[in-house]
Amino acid sequence: MPVNLPEIDPNLLSPIQGIKLGWAESNIKQPNRKDLLVIEVADGSTVAGVFTQNRFCAAPVTLCKQHLNAVNERKVESIKALVINTGNANAGTGEQGMADAVATCEQLAEIMNIPVESILPFSTGVILEHLPMDKLLAGLPLAVSNLTENNWANAASAIMTTDVAPKAFSTSLNIGNDTVNITGISKGAGMIHPNMATMLGYIATDAAIDQSLLNDITKEIADLSFNCISVDGDTSTNDSFIVLATGKSGANPINSRKDNGFAEIYNALLETAQYLAKAIVRDGEGATKFLTVTVKGAKSVEEAKSIGFSIGKSPLVKTAMFASDPNLGRVLAAIGYASRECSSLSDLNTDELELYFGDVLVAEKGGRAESYVEADGQAIMNESEIDITVQLHRGADNATIWTCDFSYDYVKINAEYRT
Amino acid sequence: MPVNLPEIDPNLLSPIQGIKLGWAESNIKQPNRKDLLVIEVADGSTVAGVFTQNRFCAAPVTLCKQHLNAVNERKVESIKALVINTGNANAGTGEQGMADAVATCEQLAEIMNIPVESILPFSTGVILEHLPMDKLLAGLPLAVSNLTENNWANAASAIMTTDVAPKAFSTSLNIGNDTVNITGISKGAGMIHPNMATMLGYIATDAAIDQSLLNDITKEIADLSFNCISVDGDTSTNDSFIVLATGKSGANPINSRKDNGFAEIYNALLETAQYLAKAIVRDGEGATKFLTVTVKGAKSVEEAKSIGFSIGKSPLVKTAMFASDPNLGRVLAAIGYASRECSSLSDLNTDELELYFGDVLVAEKGGRAESYVEADGQAIMNESEIDITVQLHRGADNATIWTCDFSYDYVKINAEYRT
Repeated sequence: MPVNLPEIDPNLLSPIQGIKLGWAESNIKQPNRKDLLVIEVADGSTVAGVFTQNRFCAAPVTLCKQHLNAVNERKVESIKALVINTGNANAGTGEQGMADAVATCEQLAEIMNIPVESILPFSTGVILEHLPMDKLLAGLPLAVSNLTENNWANAASAIMTTDVAPKAFSTSLNIGNDTVNITGISKGAGMIHPNMATMLGYIATDAAIDQSLLNDITKEIADLSFNCISVDGDTSTNDSFIVLATGKSGANPINSRKDNGFAEIYNALLETAQYLAKAIVRDGEGATKFLTVTVKGAKSVEEAKSIGFSIGKSPLVKTAMFASDPNLGRVLAAIGYASRECSSLSDLNTDELELYFGDVLVAEKGGRAESYVEADGQAIMNESEIDITVQLHRGADNATIWTCDFSYDYVKINAEYRT
Repeated sequence: MPVNLPEIDPNLLSPIQGIKLGWAESNIKQPNRKDLLVIEVADGSTVAGVFTQNRFCAAPVTLCKQHLNAVNERKVESIKALVINTGNANAGTGEQGMADAVATCEQLAEIMNIPVESILPFSTGVILEHLPMDKLLAGLPLAVSNLTENNWANAASAIMTTDVAPKAFSTSLNIGNDTVNITGISKGAGMIHPNMATMLGYIATDAAIDQSLLNDITKEIADLSFNCISVDGDTSTNDSFIVLATGKSGANPINSRKDNGFAEIYNALLETAQYLAKAIVRDGEGATKFLTVTVKGAKSVEEAKSIGFSIGKSPLVKTAMFASDPNLGRVLAAIGYASRECSSLSDLNTDELELYFGDVLVAEKGGRAESYVEADGQAIMNESEIDITVQLHRGADNATIWTCDFSYDYVKINAEYRT
């Protein structure tokens, strides 16, 4: 079961004016399962995306980038639809894979009477298998036929693969006298590591946000949310994070960082993205604990993130967490070898740093803290939410990453499931 | 059980003239267990070492480096003894830890009547606990009392921690008309990753090798052996690899790479180091498969090693190997994200590379090879020794790394054992 991930209440997911969602069961991998989602985006919306940096990126990712470029170069007016299938990632599928992604867009373009280049395609699931195009194409009219603003909870279910639970979040804010809504969904449970993880994330708002500004803040928000999580250190071929801004709320448009409401919308989008990113970790394959690792006092954010991930990726730390073992030695060792991946840490003075489990000081001056008694560390480890904090005392930069423990079930799930 | 690791035959381990070994059961962590080893090194031997790059390096590692520097700066004549305890790593132990390491050397110096600085101390085991000095010091005279050239098999047992089996190897070669012997031992099973892994490795030869040359080749050999293995990606606080050359064989000394016999002794030392390094992987915690990942046609050795470790560290690849699942998708994904840690790979063209399981071409042109049928891949995966080869076709450099699979037992061992 996911770690402290509340069930979705469909009534608490706000519809976003200008966004309709429709789903189908098209038997791509399994029968009787929502596996196809179409998102209709109102004319004039701005759309930005961040994609996997895996060199084996999937055909739909390549096509998404081309279509977003076409918008940014004003070759097409705007993005008008997204289409997402699960069960098959259309990755490592060569020329046929690209032809299949194009054919999916072409068919949807015809059904919805919109340009092919205004459609963003996404796939997630098994790698190296060709899409069952007959099933997928047959599902498209079904998905289009039930497009409605009230389908966010169904959409969250429709994009799941090995996820145990759907992931969605809504919030709202005021810009001037107008209320602006934000709703997002995400999926992912394994092969999770930044840049990007095997994850899909979609956030929509009825605020109006300038295209160039939206491009910038989508990247920044991804770096502070989806790029701060790790389940197993693997990075998939298909990861995508998309922000849609329809402008239908009627609130004043946000065209620059100085505009009224910018800080509020930025923070609300970030809150939504962090909730959705953390939800993926909470549903991490086999997870029983949710870990928040905060590194303070670094010389750079890169240093802080390197130490955070060095701890958060260590199988020894993660198995200790699974065992509720307050094993400071493994955490200290992981801090010590972070310099492997961040050369500026090669002069890290381990005598100067402090390590905390929760608010308990467990290590300082290169060893166990004199004040520390194991019962205090054990009490922290017995919780399902564990905070680990490292204070380096060498600079002013901080970072927080989120991860989960490593359990028998992780091995079981990944030894039995064919990605 | 270790994967295809032959049992040690004490009769096949060659004594090395100029090296005597003695052990004791000193109850450091457990009773009735060899946990202390003293190695006496003949006067005039050359000794070189490579140590962990973990910033939390243990007190004995710091002291080893100081004493080796003293030799290299000719402040002491030569290294005359090594002392190794298991059960306690004396790491993260602050000033007391250094005092304990010094006291260990002082006591042994008195017993053996040699300078303190001529002794190299090593510890492995639990982190963050102070050494039980009374037990350790009481064991030293016992270990010294049974020093003999014929104790290599006992020595291999005396340095074990979570190891299931002792690890040792002997070989010999001729330099001119003289026979030169090499014998080595190693330990390690978890927290294994290069630079360095939780491992100790000691190789002795009765060849004579110039000190400066031995320093260089010890580093090179470590990079081609112990720095090419990974069990879980963790790097410990105590790792050390030592090469001892006593010169007692009578063979002509090797003073430069041009000397007669250099290539032979280099290759024999490398063979020994690689055997001992691979033995650690074969005994990897929970291992059921031994993986050899070879990357060819890279632009640099760093590129080749990055891809090798990206595959060899991936929990998804390693759980697939445990399941005997010919999962090319996970291997291709791991190749694709190697650029995360090796920026020169950011222009890797995945359409040009070939992937082999054993001698079966499984992927090319960005996807599954047309000639590939899964039964062929399955046959390879069913073996306990699995070769994965990547041909990048972008340069002339190669690298090979060795790793093992990720099993239920890895989690079990590390959730239950306190390192």
